[in-house]
Amino acid sequence: MDRQVIGILGGGQLGRMLIEAANRMNIQVRVLDPTEKSPAKQISNFTQHVNEPFTSSTAIRALAKECDVLTVEIEHVNCDELEAIEESGAVKVRPSAGTIRLIQDKYLQKEYLAERGLSLPEYIKCDTLEVARNAGRVFGYPFVLKCRLGAYDGRGNYVVKDESDVDAGFKSLGGDMLYAEKFVPFIKELAVMVARRPGGQVVSYPVVETVQRDNICELVYAPAQIDGQVREAAMKVAMDTVSCLPDGSTGIFGVEMFLHKDGHTVLVNEIAPRTHNSGHYTTEACSTSQFENHLRAVLDLPLGDTSLKVPAAAMINVLGGANGFSSVLDPCLASLNVPGATIHLYGKAEAKVGRKMGHITVVADSALQLRRRTDLIVGKLANASQEERERLAYRNTQKPSTDGSVDDNEKGDVADISPLVGIIMGSDSDLPTMRPAAEILEQFGVPFELTIVSAHRTPDRMFEYARAAHKRGLKAIIAGAGGAAHLPGMVAALTPLPVIGVPVKGRCLDGVDSLHSIVQMPRGVPVATVAINNAVNAALLAVRIIGASCPTYLDAMAQYMDDMRVSVEKKIDHLGTTGWKDY
Amino acid sequence: MDRQVIGILGGGQLGRMLIEAANRMNIQVRVLDPTEKSPAKQISNFTQHVNEPFTSSTAIRALAKECDVLTVEIEHVNCDELEAIEESGAVKVRPSAGTIRLIQDKYLQKEYLAERGLSLPEYIKCDTLEVARNAGRVFGYPFVLKCRLGAYDGRGNYVVKDESDVDAGFKSLGGDMLYAEKFVPFIKELAVMVARRPGGQVVSYPVVETVQRDNICELVYAPAQIDGQVREAAMKVAMDTVSCLPDGSTGIFGVEMFLHKDGHTVLVNEIAPRTHNSGHYTTEACSTSQFENHLRAVLDLPLGDTSLKVPAAAMINVLGGANGFSSVLDPCLASLNVPGATIHLYGKAEAKVGRKMGHITVVADSALQLRRRTDLIVGKLANASQEERERLAYRNTQKPSTDGSVDDNEKGDVADISPLVGIIMGSDSDLPTMRPAAEILEQFGVPFELTIVSAHRTPDRMFEYARAAHKRGLKAIIAGAGGAAHLPGMVAALTPLPVIGVPVKGRCLDGVDSLHSIVQMPRGVPVATVAINNAVNAALLAVRIIGASCPTYLDAMAQYMDDMRVSVEKKIDHLGTTGWKDY
Repeated sequence: MDRQVIGILGGGQLGRMLIEAANRMNIQVRVLDPTEKSPAKQISNFTQHVNEPFTSSTAIRALAKECDVLTVEIEHVNCDELEAIEESGAVKVRPSAGTIRLIQDKYLQKEYLAERGLSLPEYIKCDTLEVARNAGRVFGYPFVLKCRLGAYDGRGNYVVKDESDVDAGFKSLGGDMLYAEKFVPFIKELAVMVARRPGGQVVSYPVVETVQRDNICELVYAPAQIDGQVREAAMKVAMDTVSCLPDGSTGIFGVEMFLHKDGHTVLVNEIAPRTHNSGHYTTEACSTSQFENHLRAVLDLPLGDTSLKVPAAAMINVLGGANGFSSVLDPCLASLNVPGATIHLYGKAEAKVGRKMGHITVVADSALQLRRRTDLIVGKLANASQEERERLAYRNTQKPSTDGSVDDNEKGDVADISPLVGIIMGSDSDLPTMRPAAEILEQFGVPFELTIVSAHRTPDRMFEYARAAHKRGLKAIIAGAGGAAHLPGMVAALTPLPVIGVPVKGRCLDGVDSLHSIVQMPRGVPVATVAINNAVNAALLAVRIIGASCPTYLDAMAQYMDDMRVSVEKKIDHLGTTGWKDY
Repeated sequence: MDRQVIGILGGGQLGRMLIEAANRMNIQVRVLDPTEKSPAKQISNFTQHVNEPFTSSTAIRALAKECDVLTVEIEHVNCDELEAIEESGAVKVRPSAGTIRLIQDKYLQKEYLAERGLSLPEYIKCDTLEVARNAGRVFGYPFVLKCRLGAYDGRGNYVVKDESDVDAGFKSLGGDMLYAEKFVPFIKELAVMVARRPGGQVVSYPVVETVQRDNICELVYAPAQIDGQVREAAMKVAMDTVSCLPDGSTGIFGVEMFLHKDGHTVLVNEIAPRTHNSGHYTTEACSTSQFENHLRAVLDLPLGDTSLKVPAAAMINVLGGANGFSSVLDPCLASLNVPGATIHLYGKAEAKVGRKMGHITVVADSALQLRRRTDLIVGKLANASQEERERLAYRNTQKPSTDGSVDDNEKGDVADISPLVGIIMGSDSDLPTMRPAAEILEQFGVPFELTIVSAHRTPDRMFEYARAAHKRGLKAIIAGAGGAAHLPGMVAALTPLPVIGVPVKGRCLDGVDSLHSIVQMPRGVPVATVAINNAVNAALLAVRIIGASCPTYLDAMAQYMDDMRVSVEKKIDHLGTTGWKDY
C-alpha cells in the first residue's frame, strides 16, 4: 500500500497487532525492542529489527536509519533522541517528540488540558510531604497520589485513605515528581480511541466502558451502556482533547475518562499517545481497527471507518496467574465454546502473574447476549474471585443444553444495559394500563425505561424526549394515551423511530376516541396502533421490531408463541378431562 | 492454545491467512513451499520451513518430521507420500490422503457424490474424441469439457460452442483424462464453506453468491441474495456433501454449487478440500473465520461460531493487471475511502496479469449499502471493462459530497437484492389501495415483494407464507384487508415478525369494520395497525422498523421527515405571497 517503512519503538503486543495490520497492507515495519523474539518481531516479515532498549539513543538512531516514519507503542521512550531526529528532518516522528514528552509527564498533560478548557478532576503538584498532607485537607479522603512519570496499569498510583496514610503513600511512590488528585465519585470509567492525521483531521471510535480489577483493565464493553447523549458528549470530550494537542500529534490516542456520579459530567483522566488496551475490541467489532488506523494516520492515508459493525462487543484481558500458562489457557479454552469469541495470544515466553498475555474479544447481537457470553469467560480468569467464579458458574449451568453446546439465551440481568424501548404515558393514571408492557419487556430481557411524558401538560419535555430518542439508543417507543390521544402521533412526528400507540380507555366512548386519535394519522407519519388498553401487545410488538434484526429476540418471540400454544393445549386437555360442566 | 505443530503443504495466500489465524492462537505452523519468501512464510514465527515443491516426497517427509498434523492449502499435492505418512501413523494427515485424492480427480469426485445421492449436473467420462462428440449429441450445445486433474480458476475447462468446436476443445485440454458436463442454465453460482471435525461433526458458514469474470471469482456476496429457504436448502446440500465424504475428511471444505434457473434446484459443482476464495469474507464478517476454523478442525478443537456478525458483506479479488502493481494499488487506494472496506494484500513479489494479489472485504448494514460500497471499488479493478468503469464512475459521481468523503447513501438498484418487506393483500382489488406502499418502499430503496395472500380463499397459502416469512429473510410484513379483515391478525399469529395491518375501506361502514377487525387483536398477538386506507404510512412504518437497527434507513427516514417540513414551508411561502384568495 505504501513504500514508506515504519519504525516502532517497542515490540510488545501493541506492536504485534500493528504488524498484523501492516502485514495485510504489505507495509514494512521495523521494530526496536530489547527482546530478540518480542511479540511484535515474531510475526514480522522484516528481519532487520533492532534488539536494543527503546530508551537508548544509539538504538533509536539505528532504527531510524532505514525508516521513513517513527512511531511508538509505548510512551516511555527517549524523547530527546526523537526530538533530535525530528529536527534533523530525515525521518518523520509521529506522534511528535513534543507530544510524547507532554503526555509522559501526567502533571504537564493535565496543565496543558486544563489551560485549554477541558474538564479534569481537581489536582495539584505535589513535590513535598507538606503539600501532600495539605491535599488531604483540601480534597478530603480518599484522594489519590500519582507519579508524574512512568506510571501504567495502576503502578505509580496510591489511594490515600486517611491522614495517617499520607506519609506511607508519599514514600511508596518515591516522594518526588508526584501530584495529588481529588477522588472522583464516578459511575463508570469511559474510554475513546481517537485517530488524528497530520493535517489535524480527527475521527473517533465509539465510547466504551472499562472495568478495572486491581488497577488493571479487565473488561471493555462497546458501546458503553450509558445514555446515548452522554456517549455523544464523551465522544466530543475525547475529540476535543486530541484536537487541542500540539501540532504533530499524529496517530491514534486513547482518552480515558470518568463519568461523574451526577450522570452527565465527563472528566478527562488521561491520554495515551498510542494504540490502547481499551481499543482492542476494534479488531473484531469495528470496520477499521485502531491498529490499521494508527498506520493510516502516521502514513497520512485516509482514515478508515471507525463505527461499530456489530451491535455489541467486549474485550477481556487474559493475564498470567499463579498457575502460569494454565491461568492463560483456562479462559481461552472456555472461549472456544463461546459463540462470537476470538482469542488473541501475544506469544510471550513467560506467564508472570499480572502480565498481559492475551485478550479475548466477544461480539454479540445485543448487549444482553454479550453479557451472557462474556460471563462464560470471565469466571475462568485467573484473577476472578472465588465468589465470582461460583456465581457465574452457577448462572451458566442453570440451563445445560442437551447437545453440549453453550446456551447463550438464558435470561440475564439487564439492569446495567441501556434501554432499547421507551414506555411513555401522559399521566401516572395510565400506569395500571401500561404496567403489563413493562412486565412483558422484563420477561423478554429487553432493557427499557418508563416515564411520564404528556403532550398537553409537558409539551417541551415531549419535544426533547422524542427528538433525542434515537440518539439516546432507543429502537422503539411505546406511548399510551387516552381521549384526544395526541402523544403517540406527536412523538411519531418528532422521531424517525417506530412509535407504538396504546389507546387508553377513558370514562366515555369506550376508548374509541383514543383509538381513532392514535390510528388515524395523516399520510407521512405512521403510528403502530394496538388494541384499546392492550399494552401487552404493544410490548410484544416492540420485541418483534427489535427481533426483526436481532436473532436473540426473534428466537425468544418464536418461543413465546410456542409457549402460548402449549398453554392453550393444556386447557384443551383440562377441558376434555374435566368436562364443560365442571370446568 | 495447542502444542501440536501444524505442517501446511503450500505457502501461498491461503497459507498466509492460516498463519495469521495461527499467530493469534500461538499455534506453530511449518510451511512446505518452493518459494523461500512465499506469502505464508513472510508472517510466520517459525523459521524451519521447507523450501521445496509440495509434490516432492522427500520434501513432504522433511516437513512431517517436526509436525504433529499435516494439512494442505492446495489440493494438487503428492497423495502417495501423504498416504505413506498416514500409514506410518507418526503424523496425522487432515484431510486424509484418500479425501484429497478423491477430490483431486474431479470425475471420481462426481462419481462418489452421485453414488451418494447428491444432485449434480449431468456428466460423462470422456477419454476419446468419439465420446466427446457423442456428449454434444446427448447434452446439446454448449456443453463443457473439463480436465479431471489439476484444473483451477477456469484453467482446464473448455466451453464447446457447437459440433465443429469439439475437436479444438478436446485437443486444447490434452485429449485425455477428461469428462464432459451438461451446461447448467443457472441463476447464480453459490458457495458454502463447511468445517468438519475428526468425529464427523460439521458446521456450515452462510450461503454466498460468487460472481465470476473470465472464469476467475471476482466478487462474493454474503449472504447470497436469494430466497432464505433456498439458502437453507443450499446449506443442507453443502453439509450433506461434506458429511458424505470418507472418514478422515477433517478440516474446512468449499462447496461450489449452481442455483438452477428453476429457482430452487441446487446442483453441486465441485468441492475444494481446503480454505477457499469464496470464504475470505469470513475474516471480517463472521464470528470465526474459515482459517481459524480450519485450524480448530485439524487440531480437533471445538469449532467456532460460523454465523455472520454483520448484516451484509462482500469480497472483491484484486488481480494483477497490465499495469503491474498499479493495477493492484488502484482498487486498494479507492477502498481506503470506502467505509467498511478492509485490504488484504498477500505480499507477492510480482503482479503478473490475472494473478491473485490480494482481496478487499466490505461490510455494510444492509445489502443496499453493500452494493453502493462495492461499486466504488469494482470500477477500479484492472479487469473491469471500460463500460463498467464508466457506468460505475457515473453512478458514483452522481452525488458528490461537499466534504470530499464518499457518499454511500445514494439511491441504488435493489432489483437483485432479496426482499426485506412483504406486501400482501387479500385480493387484486386491494392493489389500488396498497400500491402507494410499494412506491414508498421503492423510493427508500427497501427491497420488497408484493403478492396476493387471502386468509379466506387461500388459507393454506397464508399459512405457508406467514410461517416461512422470517426464514425467507423478511423483516416485516404489510397486510392489507377489508371488511372482516382477518389477514393481518392471522399472519401475525403465524410469524414472530412485526405485521403491519392496513384497514381497507369497503362499501359499507367506512372502513371501521376493517379497522376494528385488524386492531382489536387479543393479548399475545399484536398487529401494528395504521389508518384506514393509509398504505403510505404502513410502508413508512416498515422503513422505521428496519431503520431501528439499520443506520442507512434510519438516516433516510430522518431525511424524508425533513423533506416533508421543507415542502410544507414552501406552501407556507406560496400562500403568504399569493394570498388565500388566489392560492
